[in-house]
Amino acid sequence: MNEPQQRIRASFDSQRLMSTLGAELISVTDGEVQILLNFSDSLSQQHGYMHAGAITSIVDSACGYAALSKAPPGFDVVTAEFKVNFMRPAIGEHFLAVGTVKSTGKLLSVCHGEVYAVTENSKKLIALMQATIVFVDA
Amino acid sequence: MNEPQQRIRASFDSQRLMSTLGAELISVTDGEVQILLNFSDSLSQQHGYMHAGAITSIVDSACGYAALSKAPPGFDVVTAEFKVNFMRPAIGEHFLAVGTVKSTGKLLSVCHGEVYAVTENSKKLIALMQATIVFVDA
Amino acid sequence: MNEPQQRIRASFDSQRLMSTLGAELISVTDGEVQILLNFSDSLSQQHGYMHAGAITSIVDSACGYAALSKAPPGFDVVTAEFKVNFMRPAIGEHFLAVGTVKSTGKLLSVCHGEVYAVTENSKKLIALMQATIVFVDA
Amino acid sequence: MNEPQQRIRASFDSQRLMSTLGAELISVTDGEVQILLNFSDSLSQQHGYMHAGAITSIVDSACGYAALSKAPPGFDVVTAEFKVNFMRPAIGEHFLAVGTVKSTGKLLSVCHGEVYAVTENSKKLIALMQATIVFVDA
Repeated sequence: MNEPQQRIRASFDSQRLMSTLGAELISVTDGEVQILLNFSDSLSQQHGYMHAGAITSIVDSACGYAALSKAPPGFDVVTAEFKVNFMRPAIGEHFLAVGTVKSTGKLLSVCHGEVYAVTENSKKLIALMQATIVFVDA
Repeated sequence: MNEPQQRIRASFDSQRLMSTLGAELISVTDGEVQILLNFSDSLSQQHGYMHAGAITSIVDSACGYAALSKAPPGFDVVTAEFKVNFMRPAIGEHFLAVGTVKSTGKLLSVCHGEVYAVTENSKKLIALMQATIVFVDA
Repeated sequence: MNEPQQRIRASFDSQRLMSTLGAELISVTDGEVQILLNFSDSLSQQHGYMHAGAITSIVDSACGYAALSKAPPGFDVVTAEFKVNFMRPAIGEHFLAVGTVKSTGKLLSVCHGEVYAVTENSKKLIALMQATIVFVDA
Repeated sequence: MNEPQQRIRASFDSQRLMSTLGAELISVTDGEVQILLNFSDSLSQQHGYMHAGAITSIVDSACGYAALSKAPPGFDVVTAEFKVNFMRPAIGEHFLAVGTVKSTGKLLSVCHGEVYAVTENSKKLIALMQATIVFVDA
């Protein structure tokens, strides 16, 4: 791993919510981060599917860390705001969140996030995020 | 409790994510729902504050149940989309999410959500949600 | 008018889109700005109602100028992003946009916007905005 | 032109705001619509660049018509909500809005929009939209 990847992994490991949910950081490249979450009954909403809050948590972290991969040295990231569309019920064995940087300025980064419900035979887009991430002094 | 309140409480109790996070349904009135979440290290982001995903989870549920309090008989709710601004770091002992219905149509309800960080001596607005909830056959 | 009000009026008068649409700045107070737009066939969408783009234009300006009323001296504002829900068809004689500041930091302001369709006998909420405004050196 | 393209062109021609702004429908394919707007002083904000409201108007129409290209026969579209990030100042000779359908259900379509500032030698992404469009009886 290079330095930004190590920094992102260390930060991810310190996000206790990620381990509480059971999320794993599976890929970090320049401008793109992937996080995987297995289905669990303990994260369900009233119909037994994954709660929008759990789906949002992993794609928020994916977008934030994608922005961090592009941040100037000595800066950390915080989420200013995001918007998420939920296009299909979150039914699946695994949920893959992919955060991608669309633009980076001095203060703000705009990121695009996608979440896929994955089973042995299918991979369906279930949620779309558009997020604004702020660079702050670390 | 009247019938809609009972129905909302039963649905909340079946959202396993809410008990995993430690969230409590503390108020249900016509068009407004309040959910409380105590601070826990297990829900933190990298700076030790509450993760945006945990904050979003409770205000999403608060908005969804506010919409359900206005839903026609025989309908349930699902979140179509939401947007959240995070205005201050989520530092506090308790987090209070308040979901309010702004308009209700045949198919869609638009809700406004606020999250407050609460300590013994202060109550600060830390997050704002604007959400679109869809009515679906139960 | 005090100094911030004069500054906001001068900036509004230099927004050529506002005069192209026929919008008027009708109220500026600390943290709240109101803009009025009369219905015009020339601003319609395919059903003859006001186009979402015209409605968005006035509430974006109302939110931006509400933020400017709270900006530090020497700073101007630009819109980083906004989200708008359209709750009812934009049918009416007049449209009143009200922008209100919800929080102000060093760099960012979060604003809430409402648009009302107004006739002689009614005033209906038709659109809700949640916006993030950035302070930039003037 | 096939039938959906004719229908979209006819609807675009009836959106009076589009001709007031000077916007042109330049491409309609299945699931993607492109609209072009030339820079005009009459559409400016206070710094002389294109106003966010003008940019939003064309990308809202591009997303709505992209959704209409996928709508069931006999249905029209209305915008339920959208979110737009403005990533760079809207400086350019031409502005190209591209609306693309990301998913289509029975009632709702989720669309992604991009706006580019175009000059003789450059094409820069300046705005991103994520929109929810509702199908309604025509």
